[in-house]
Amino acid sequence: MAKIVVIFHSGYGHTRKQAEAVASGADAQLIAIDAEGNISEADWAALAAAPAIIMGAPTYMGGASWQFKKFADASSKAWFGQQWKDKVFAGFTNSASMNGDKQVTLQYLATLAMQHSGLWVGTGLMPSNAKAAQRNDVNWLGAFTGAMMQSPSDSSPDEVSSGDLETARLLGARVAALVTRLHA
Amino acid sequence: MAKIVVIFHSGYGHTRKQAEAVASGADAQLIAIDAEGNISEADWAALAAAPAIIMGAPTYMGGASWQFKKFADASSKAWFGQQWKDKVFAGFTNSASMNGDKQVTLQYLATLAMQHSGLWVGTGLMPSNAKAAQRNDVNWLGAFTGAMMQSPSDSSPDEVSSGDLETARLLGARVAALVTRLHA
Amino acid sequence: MAKIVVIFHSGYGHTRKQAEAVASGADAQLIAIDAEGNISEADWAALAAAPAIIMGAPTYMGGASWQFKKFADASSKAWFGQQWKDKVFAGFTNSASMNGDKQVTLQYLATLAMQHSGLWVGTGLMPSNAKAAQRNDVNWLGAFTGAMMQSPSDSSPDEVSSGDLETARLLGARVAALVTRLHA
Amino acid sequence: MAKIVVIFHSGYGHTRKQAEAVASGADAQLIAIDAEGNISEADWAALAAAPAIIMGAPTYMGGASWQFKKFADASSKAWFGQQWKDKVFAGFTNSASMNGDKQVTLQYLATLAMQHSGLWVGTGLMPSNAKAAQRNDVNWLGAFTGAMMQSPSDSSPDEVSSGDLETARLLGARVAALVTRLHA
Repeated sequence: MAKIVVIFHSGYGHTRKQAEAVASGADAQLIAIDAEGNISEADWAALAAAPAIIMGAPTYMGGASWQFKKFADASSKAWFGQQWKDKVFAGFTNSASMNGDKQVTLQYLATLAMQHSGLWVGTGLMPSNAKAAQRNDVNWLGAFTGAMMQSPSDSSPDEVSSGDLETARLLGARVAALVTRLHA
Repeated sequence: MAKIVVIFHSGYGHTRKQAEAVASGADAQLIAIDAEGNISEADWAALAAAPAIIMGAPTYMGGASWQFKKFADASSKAWFGQQWKDKVFAGFTNSASMNGDKQVTLQYLATLAMQHSGLWVGTGLMPSNAKAAQRNDVNWLGAFTGAMMQSPSDSSPDEVSSGDLETARLLGARVAALVTRLHA
Repeated sequence: MAKIVVIFHSGYGHTRKQAEAVASGADAQLIAIDAEGNISEADWAALAAAPAIIMGAPTYMGGASWQFKKFADASSKAWFGQQWKDKVFAGFTNSASMNGDKQVTLQYLATLAMQHSGLWVGTGLMPSNAKAAQRNDVNWLGAFTGAMMQSPSDSSPDEVSSGDLETARLLGARVAALVTRLHA
Repeated sequence: MAKIVVIFHSGYGHTRKQAEAVASGADAQLIAIDAEGNISEADWAALAAAPAIIMGAPTYMGGASWQFKKFADASSKAWFGQQWKDKVFAGFTNSASMNGDKQVTLQYLATLAMQHSGLWVGTGLMPSNAKAAQRNDVNWLGAFTGAMMQSPSDSSPDEVSSGDLETARLLGARVAALVTRLHA
């Protein structure tokens, strides 16, 4: 079976770290959308073959980065023929604020997956939200629709939260487990 | 295997018609949330056993009716133990206007499913949106996240659109096919 | 001029603290939706007279509590006559998780305000999201559409974040300033 | 006082018709985002000076076109200094399907406005949704958060609905009236 694909845009490297964590959990091929919002023909072929597509983007100005959206708009070619129908989809996003409208980005990614007639799967992780919760707990951010990561505005990609990375990895693993179940 | 459940609230009977169409497509058990937002213990047991839960509500004042939300809030009991994890979920809604914020209701239903760690599946239907489109075409309303029905404000439940009903039936059939695939 | 109204539902007292903070900033009348989702006729009259309505609810199972939604559905009576047209609206929510789908609740509150042909105003506050950010900073949660508060699942109403309360107070003050400007 | 600005992207000309209708209602300056997602320095200056910014984009693949999003991301420069704070904002969108996730685009536009600390104003129009409703009625599509237009997939810009155009014009007029009231 073809590999799961993690397709993402990263502006400064934080979302790339998250994408790598998702890919490690899903044993997936990573496809980076470039600074102009493009991917290669080989990348489109990998997407067409993949049993699952996990999509990620930073949240900029309340939504997925324009480079990701350019990819999404270009996917209309696959949409017309419903070539991605019944694939598994999931999503992730990073931004500087705890909330920062990350949920709006995840809602958009799910909307895109629905246009492609996919199955959407979320984190499947309970939140860590009691008084004893620690910043690096799994799903400390309390996200269900997809994986969230929060990186302070003045932090480097090397400083991303280990808990947010583990949350991302677990999302990848969840998608892989579902793919295995569907293709058993 | 236990039956798929279609759980819905209907204020005036239109959403009930839609629910019946979904259930016919999914060969599902119908559970009606009552006018006070309640269901029986047997209903909760059926939900716990079901491989898929398809949720429906009218869109009132921009969101699912309060009776549906009361059910959703009561489902926190199942949530704490993640008893509905990995079930298939889908949703539908009816309102008087073409749009009328029906998408907000569907987004909410998907959000609820994600809190329950479910898989979300949409209509999987291309829209009928060319100039030759007819009101009773399948997915004439052009919905992807779930099935939509539109019933004029002064129409009776007997007058609901046959195309919207068929769209609802096809959503049920899609859920049933996915359940079969997952449990093969 | 009639007073601004802060209308809210609180299940365990945390959202009440937030509502009180909003009201202090707006010099507003507080109306509590009761455990059955009801308010009095005098409350409806206060809403009809108010130049601004600030709405708050806890986020339960991914959306505003059913008691709040029951109020929203009952506001259809005011909607039919567009009695609340051109009022200023704003919103707030509390939940246990950092995110926890609070944004979905705020989106719903804004949707409701739009159905009522209102003006929507958000926090107008920059987020505190650098590495030096502290939990009790104003808008540490990074919310724009409305004010967010996060209270650990095992915390009491007396333990709510002072920064989140100040964020709430500032939302109230922002609404009051806009009302003054509109009615100058 | 500086002119209201209507800023929009149009891929094939339909959204341009809608933008022109909004601008006629608001006596506004039209700014077209180009095919690469760019506007001029003079355009940015007009936005900085405008008392209101009305934003429009086609709904492509479930959200605002990438060209619009590129503009939104570039507006982060204004965001950092909160240069657009307290401006009035509104939005509109066009797509081929009756729904077609147009609401997701409007939610995004409102989210962007909230990040900019603006005031959001919707259509303020009751829906035309009784059995006697006609396609070219004002707000036949039943949208509140912003103005919607629906153009069949095989229609030309010259064929857009006169009712949807009037809805757009009325949104512009509503924004202009609010600006007048705020700056009286």
